[in-house]
Amino acid sequence: MAATAALREAPSPRDATAAFPAPAVSARPVDRAAWIAAFAHVRAETERRAAPLSPEDQQIQSMADASPTKWHRAHTTWFFEQFLLREHLPGYAIYDERLHYLFNSYYVAAGPRQPRIARGLITRPTTEEIAAYRAHVDRAVTALLGQASPTALEAVLPILEIGLYHEQQHQELLVTDILHAFAQNPLGPAYDPDWRFLAASGARGTVDLPRGIAQVGHAGAGFSFDNESPRHDSLILPCALDRALVSNRDWLGFMADGGYARPELWLSDGWLAVQAEGWEAPGYWRRDGESWATMTLAGIRPVEPDLPVTHVSYYEADAYARWAGRDLPTEAEWEVAAGGGGLDDAFGLVWQWTRSAYTAYPGYRPLPGALGEYNGKFMSNQFVLRGSSVATPQGHARVPYRNFFYPHQRWQFTGLRLAQIHA
Amino acid sequence: MAATAALREAPSPRDATAAFPAPAVSARPVDRAAWIAAFAHVRAETERRAAPLSPEDQQIQSMADASPTKWHRAHTTWFFEQFLLREHLPGYAIYDERLHYLFNSYYVAAGPRQPRIARGLITRPTTEEIAAYRAHVDRAVTALLGQASPTALEAVLPILEIGLYHEQQHQELLVTDILHAFAQNPLGPAYDPDWRFLAASGARGTVDLPRGIAQVGHAGAGFSFDNESPRHDSLILPCALDRALVSNRDWLGFMADGGYARPELWLSDGWLAVQAEGWEAPGYWRRDGESWATMTLAGIRPVEPDLPVTHVSYYEADAYARWAGRDLPTEAEWEVAAGGGGLDDAFGLVWQWTRSAYTAYPGYRPLPGALGEYNGKFMSNQFVLRGSSVATPQGHARVPYRNFFYPHQRWQFTGLRLAQIHA
Amino acid sequence: MAATAALREAPSPRDATAAFPAPAVSARPVDRAAWIAAFAHVRAETERRAAPLSPEDQQIQSMADASPTKWHRAHTTWFFEQFLLREHLPGYAIYDERLHYLFNSYYVAAGPRQPRIARGLITRPTTEEIAAYRAHVDRAVTALLGQASPTALEAVLPILEIGLYHEQQHQELLVTDILHAFAQNPLGPAYDPDWRFLAASGARGTVDLPRGIAQVGHAGAGFSFDNESPRHDSLILPCALDRALVSNRDWLGFMADGGYARPELWLSDGWLAVQAEGWEAPGYWRRDGESWATMTLAGIRPVEPDLPVTHVSYYEADAYARWAGRDLPTEAEWEVAAGGGGLDDAFGLVWQWTRSAYTAYPGYRPLPGALGEYNGKFMSNQFVLRGSSVATPQGHARVPYRNFFYPHQRWQFTGLRLAQIHA
Amino acid sequence: MAATAALREAPSPRDATAAFPAPAVSARPVDRAAWIAAFAHVRAETERRAAPLSPEDQQIQSMADASPTKWHRAHTTWFFEQFLLREHLPGYAIYDERLHYLFNSYYVAAGPRQPRIARGLITRPTTEEIAAYRAHVDRAVTALLGQASPTALEAVLPILEIGLYHEQQHQELLVTDILHAFAQNPLGPAYDPDWRFLAASGARGTVDLPRGIAQVGHAGAGFSFDNESPRHDSLILPCALDRALVSNRDWLGFMADGGYARPELWLSDGWLAVQAEGWEAPGYWRRDGESWATMTLAGIRPVEPDLPVTHVSYYEADAYARWAGRDLPTEAEWEVAAGGGGLDDAFGLVWQWTRSAYTAYPGYRPLPGALGEYNGKFMSNQFVLRGSSVATPQGHARVPYRNFFYPHQRWQFTGLRLAQIHA
Repeated sequence: MAATAALREAPSPRDATAAFPAPAVSARPVDRAAWIAAFAHVRAETERRAAPLSPEDQQIQSMADASPTKWHRAHTTWFFEQFLLREHLPGYAIYDERLHYLFNSYYVAAGPRQPRIARGLITRPTTEEIAAYRAHVDRAVTALLGQASPTALEAVLPILEIGLYHEQQHQELLVTDILHAFAQNPLGPAYDPDWRFLAASGARGTVDLPRGIAQVGHAGAGFSFDNESPRHDSLILPCALDRALVSNRDWLGFMADGGYARPELWLSDGWLAVQAEGWEAPGYWRRDGESWATMTLAGIRPVEPDLPVTHVSYYEADAYARWAGRDLPTEAEWEVAAGGGGLDDAFGLVWQWTRSAYTAYPGYRPLPGALGEYNGKFMSNQFVLRGSSVATPQGHARVPYRNFFYPHQRWQFTGLRLAQIHA
Repeated sequence: MAATAALREAPSPRDATAAFPAPAVSARPVDRAAWIAAFAHVRAETERRAAPLSPEDQQIQSMADASPTKWHRAHTTWFFEQFLLREHLPGYAIYDERLHYLFNSYYVAAGPRQPRIARGLITRPTTEEIAAYRAHVDRAVTALLGQASPTALEAVLPILEIGLYHEQQHQELLVTDILHAFAQNPLGPAYDPDWRFLAASGARGTVDLPRGIAQVGHAGAGFSFDNESPRHDSLILPCALDRALVSNRDWLGFMADGGYARPELWLSDGWLAVQAEGWEAPGYWRRDGESWATMTLAGIRPVEPDLPVTHVSYYEADAYARWAGRDLPTEAEWEVAAGGGGLDDAFGLVWQWTRSAYTAYPGYRPLPGALGEYNGKFMSNQFVLRGSSVATPQGHARVPYRNFFYPHQRWQFTGLRLAQIHA
Repeated sequence: MAATAALREAPSPRDATAAFPAPAVSARPVDRAAWIAAFAHVRAETERRAAPLSPEDQQIQSMADASPTKWHRAHTTWFFEQFLLREHLPGYAIYDERLHYLFNSYYVAAGPRQPRIARGLITRPTTEEIAAYRAHVDRAVTALLGQASPTALEAVLPILEIGLYHEQQHQELLVTDILHAFAQNPLGPAYDPDWRFLAASGARGTVDLPRGIAQVGHAGAGFSFDNESPRHDSLILPCALDRALVSNRDWLGFMADGGYARPELWLSDGWLAVQAEGWEAPGYWRRDGESWATMTLAGIRPVEPDLPVTHVSYYEADAYARWAGRDLPTEAEWEVAAGGGGLDDAFGLVWQWTRSAYTAYPGYRPLPGALGEYNGKFMSNQFVLRGSSVATPQGHARVPYRNFFYPHQRWQFTGLRLAQIHA
Repeated sequence: MAATAALREAPSPRDATAAFPAPAVSARPVDRAAWIAAFAHVRAETERRAAPLSPEDQQIQSMADASPTKWHRAHTTWFFEQFLLREHLPGYAIYDERLHYLFNSYYVAAGPRQPRIARGLITRPTTEEIAAYRAHVDRAVTALLGQASPTALEAVLPILEIGLYHEQQHQELLVTDILHAFAQNPLGPAYDPDWRFLAASGARGTVDLPRGIAQVGHAGAGFSFDNESPRHDSLILPCALDRALVSNRDWLGFMADGGYARPELWLSDGWLAVQAEGWEAPGYWRRDGESWATMTLAGIRPVEPDLPVTHVSYYEADAYARWAGRDLPTEAEWEVAAGGGGLDDAFGLVWQWTRSAYTAYPGYRPLPGALGEYNGKFMSNQFVLRGSSVATPQGHARVPYRNFFYPHQRWQFTGLRLAQIHA
C-alpha cells in the first residue's frame, strides 16, 4: 500500500502477530496482554505520525476544518482520560483539570470547550508537555488494563475499543491536516520526501449487481460504530460498479472538456462553490507551465495520470459522473459489491464518494451520554464515503464503515468510482 | 380549506368545472378551449394573490431566499415568453429584450441574469408596467393556443403545462415571501385581515405499513415534475405514521421541556443554527407577556394550540422527533401511507418534513436544455417535504409531489407528522 | 445652477423674495409670516423632489448608507413632531406612536429605532400614508407658529430652524440616494430626463493665501450647526488654491497614466478599497466601447470632459493629488479662500474634499439632549468637505459649513480642487 | 522603568556607554565601531525578547493585526537584506530568494508578499532556521560596515539607521503581539513571571500652555521618521495638560458610572465597537468575582488601581474625556508640553492617545521608492499617540515621535492623559 515512510512500516492487519485490531470485546477469557499491546500499538502510531513534524508544524491550524497536530495528540489522550480513567480507574488523579476545556472537541455533554476555530492559538502546553500528558495517561490506562477486575473490564473494554478507533480516525486527520497546512506554504514542505502514492489497479470492467434484497450494516462480534447499525434489509436495483477508481488521466479529460466551466454539469450549490473558490482542478493542483503539479505528502510533485484522482469534493465527483453520463453508487451498492470482493482498490487509496446522503439507518438511535454525540448529530448535509485512504491506519477499514464529509470538502484523500443504475 | 380571502374563493380541484388541472397533455383531440381556460385561470390566480398588495409591498425583497411580488409576476411571465413564445410563436416580438436579464431566475443556460440578492432593487418596470407585460404575454399565449397547428401543439402543450405548474409554485412563494416581508415590519401588516388557518383534524392513532416492496414515484398520464421519475420499487420496512400533524400544543410541550436549550436533541448543524439565529420558538413567534403570538397572513395573532405547528425548520422537526423518541417518516413511507388515504391533513395545511434527503430517484436524468435545471441541480443539502400547505394553489398538490428546502429554512408553511420505524 | 427640473425652479437664495433662509432667530419682533413661509417652502421642496418617483422608487434602500425616499419624507416629519410638537404644542396628539420607532434615525437618546439597514423593509405606511402624516404635522407646526406666545416662540424658533436645515440635508440625500438606487438597475432609469450638470467655470490660476492668523468657524446672527463653533484662530501657512475644480478631462489623464493601478499613489486603506471594490474610474462610470459613460440623474450619459469630476472618494481625491504632485487644501485654507470670494464653483456643483479629518473645533462641546447627537458623535474616521453640490437645496450652503463623509464613500456629488502648500 | 526581565537589563539610553542610539548619520569621521556596536545591540535585543518563547509561541498569529514572533525576527532581517545588502554590498548572495515573498510586510513596490492574514501558516523555515538567517545577515552587515568605502557609507548609514529604528518598532510589536496571543489561551501563560508595571508618578496638577506659535516636528541632526517633517509653525491655543496619566482607579470610576453603557458618551463608530465587541472594560480585563483581573506579561494579575490604565482604544479614551468634561490634547499641545519637560510619565509607561487624526504635516512628501511607503500611506482613519510604552525599546522614544493606530485598536500599551482647552 502506498504510504508515508512513517506509515509503511506498520504491520499489516492480516499479519497474525498484529497488535491491532484487538480481540473482540466479548471474547472470554479477556486477553489482557493483547489489549495492552493493542493500546500501545495505536498510541505509538500517533506519535510515529507526529515525529517528522517540528513544534512549529504541530502548532498551526490552517483552517477551521483542520486541527493542529498537537491538538490531535492531546485530544485523543483526553478522550481516554475523560471517558475511561475519570470513571473507571479508582483514585486516578486528573493530569491537569485545565486541559479538559482545551481538548474536548465537540462533546457538548462533556462541558464547554475551546472554540474549534481557535485551536491553533494554544501554544502552551507545548508539544513536549503534551508528550508528558500522553505518557501519563498511557501509564494509567495500561495499569487499569492490568489490574481491573473482570467485572470492571466488562465496562472498560468497550470504551477502550472506541477510544482506539477514535484515535485512528485522528491519525488520519493528523496527516490530512498537516498536508493542508503545508499546502499554504509557498515553499511546499514535504511531510516525508520518500512518500509515494501507489498507482491504481488498472482494472477494467464492472461488478454487476442483480436486483435483490441485501443486508446492509454491521454484523458479527467485531467493532463497529453506532451509525453502522441496525443492520437492515436494503433493496438493491440492478446496477454495475466500475472495478477501477477514476484516475488523474480520466480527470484531465473532464478538465479538457471544460468540466469546470460548464454550469450544466454541476449541482447548484456546487457551481456556487466553483465560482466562490475559483476551482479549476482538484484540490492542491497548481499549474506548472503547460502541465499540472500537485501538493503531496512528499512536497510538490507532477500529477501522474495513472494515479487515482484525489482531493475532489462531492460536487466535483457528481459533476464528473454527470459529464460521463454515469452515476455514483449508493452506499448500499458499494457495500454489497465490496463485500463480494469485486472492487479493486476499495481500500487504502482514496475514500470513494457515494450518492447517499449521510442519514440514520432505519431504527437508529444514538448511544446515551456524551458518546452519543459521536456520529448521530452529523446526519444532515453530508455525504457518505466508503472504503479507506492512503492515510487510514492499518486495521481501521472495514466494509460497512461509513465515513462522511460535507460536499464541498476536499482536503481528505477523497476520490470516486463510477456506477450505472439499470433501474 | 383554510385560506386567505384571496385564496378561498378559488374553485375546488374536485369541482367538475374546474379550469385546473388542465386536460392531460396526451389527450386527443386537443381541447384548445380547456387549455386556454386553464391558462387564464392560473394567470388570474397570480394577479388575485397580488391584488391586496400596494406597489410598495410588491417591491421589496426581505431576504435572499425571498423575491418581490412584482418579480414573481414578471418572472412567471418571462418563463412563458422565453420557453414558449420565443421558440414556438412565429413572428412573436419580444416585449422588451431588457427584461430577459431582469427576470430570468436561475436558468444558467438561458443566459446571465440579475443577481438573486438584488431583485428588490429594480423599481422600474413598475407594478403597473408589469401588468402590461403580463397582458401582452397573455394575449400572445392565448393566440398561440388558438391558432397553432396540431403538430405545433404537441410541442407547445408540455411547455405550457410546466409553465402553469411553475406559476403555481410562484403563487405559493408570493404568499410566503410577503408574509416574511410583513414580519419584518414592527407594525405587523395583514395580507388579509380575514385570513384564518383551519384547525388540524384532531385525528388520533396511526397508519401502519407492513413490510413490502412498493412502487414510488409518478405514474399515469397526468402532469409530474421530472424529479418524480423514474417510478421505481422501494422497500418499505414495518412502520407506523401518525394520522395527525404535530400541533402548536405539542410544540409548546417541547418548548416547556427545554427543547430549544438542550443540545443533545439537535443535529450539530441545527444547534449552530439555534445559537446563530437565537431560535427559541417556531418562525414568526414572538412573546406576548406570558403567552405567545405569531405573525400570520392576518397580522399578529395569538398562537392557537389546536392548529398544526408551522414555520419550523427541518432541524427543529428533527429535534422534536428525537425529543419525542420518534422518527420522521421517509418520503417513500409518506407516499405509500398518503396514497392509501390514511393520513389526515396530508394536504392543504402544512408541508411535512420527511427524513429523506433530496436526491435523485434511481436512474433519474435531468431534461436536456435550460428546463433541465428545474429540479435536478438542487439535489444536495436539502430535505424532502411532502403534502401541500395553506398557501398551495388548488389543483397543484399530488401524492408523489416532492417539495424540498434547506434544513434551516422556515419561512414556508412547514410542519411535520411523526412516525415510528419498527426495523 | 445645474439642477434637475424639480430643483431648478427653486427661487434663488439671492432673490429678495426668497422664503428661505428665514429671518434670524434672534430678530425681534418675530415675523411669524416669514417663518410660516420658510417652513412651507422647505416642506414643499421635499415633496417636489419626491414627486417624480413612483411608490416603488420611494420604497427601496439600495445600500446601508442610503435610505428610501419615503423614509426621508417621514423622518424629517418625525423630527418636527419629536423635537418641536411633542414638547412645545400643548395638547398635540401624536399622529401615530408606532411611527416613532420607524422614523427615528440615530438619536439614541430618543429611544430605540428601526435598524438602519432595514429601512427599506417597511412598506407600510405607504407613500400615500406618509403624505398624510406630513400634512398632519405641517398643519400643527403652522398652527403653532401662528398661535404660540412670544415666550414660547423663543424656545420654538431655534428648533424649527434646525429642523428646516435638517430637512434640507435630507433633500440632498433623497436625490443622491435615488441616484444610487437607479444606478443598480441595468435599465438606468432617469430621475429627470432633462437634468444637466453645468460645466465648471474653466477658470485658471490660483488664489494665494499669505501666512497669517485667520478666524475660522461661524460668526454672526444667522444659522449654523454646532460643529462650526467655537469660532477660533487658525494659523494659515502660505499656500495657493486652484480657482478651478478638477474636471473629468483632468481625471481621464490620471486614469490614462495608470492612476487606479499604481499602489504608490494610494493611501493603504485606499488601495484596499480599490482592490476590494474593483475601482477603475469614478463612481457610476461604466465603459461604453472605447469611451466612458456615467449614470446621472438624467440616466446613462456620456462622460463630458468639461464637467467637474464627481462621485470620487477621498481616497481617489488623495491619490489624484499625489499623482499631480499637489495637495488637497485644509478646511481652514478653503474657508479663508472662499470667504474672500476667490474660488470659482465653490458652491452648487460638487462638494470638495479637504485634507482635514473631521474633528472638533477647539473647545467644542455638543448640545445637551438628543440634538447633541447631531454632529459631534461622528468626529472620527471621516474627512471634511466644503462648498455644496448640485443636489444641495438653495439657501442651504454657507462658507463655514462643514460636511463630512467617510473616505471610501462616493455616492454623494463629491469632487475636489487642488492646492499647494508652501510650508 | 517597568519592564520584563528580558527588557529591564537593557542599558539605559542615558548611559554613556549605551550602544544605542548610534552616532548621528552625518557625524564625520564615521565611527564604524560605534555603528557596528549599535547594530549588534539592536539585533541582540530582538533575540533577547524572543528568547523566553518556545517554537510554538513564536509560530502563531492571534489576529490579523498581530504577527508571529518568528515573522518579526525574519522580517526585520529581510529589511536589511532587501534595502541594504541587495543594493550596497557587492557580491552579496541572497540567503534564500524564497524568503523575499514570505517576509516582505507591506512594501508593494518591493513585490508581492505573503498575505498578512496568513503569516501564521508558515511553519518552515523554523525558528531555528530563522536564527541562521539572522546570523547570515548579521555577518554580512557587519562586514559591510567594516569594509565599505567612505563614499559607500554615506549611502549605507541612513538605511542602516532606519533599519535599526524599524527593528525597534518590531521589538515593541513582538511583545504586544505575544501578549495578545497568550491572552487567547485560557491558561494565561506568562511571558515573564517577574514582569511588573511601574506605578504612575501620582503627580497632580497641570502644565499650562499659553497662546502662541510653536515649532512642531523634528529638528536637529539626530534620527527621525519622515512623518515628523517638515518642522513647521503651529498655533497653540491656551490649554492645560494633566501632569499625570489616567489611572486604573480613575477608569474604575468611569465604569462605575456606567461609562460603557451610556451611548451619549461615545462617538458613533465607538458605540458600534462597544456593542460589536462587547466591551465593558479595557482590553484584557476579565471579571474575577467582585473585582477585576487583567492579562499581563506576567500572566493574569489583579488590576492595580495606582497603575496607569492601558489597552484602551481611542474610542474609550474619547468617551472617558467626554465623561470627565475634559479633552484629549492635540499632538502639538503634547509635544510642546513634553518638550518643556512638564509631563510626568511621558515615556516608558503607556502611549498616550491625542485627539489629532494622523495626517501629513504641511508640505510633507513621502520618500521616493519602497521606503516611501513607510509612514505616509497610513495617513487616514488613524489617530496619533505620543510618548512611549513599557514595551518600547530603550533609546527609541523621542519627543516629536508620532505613533499611530486605528481608533478601535487596543492591543498596544495605550493609555491617555487629559487636557483642557481654554479656547
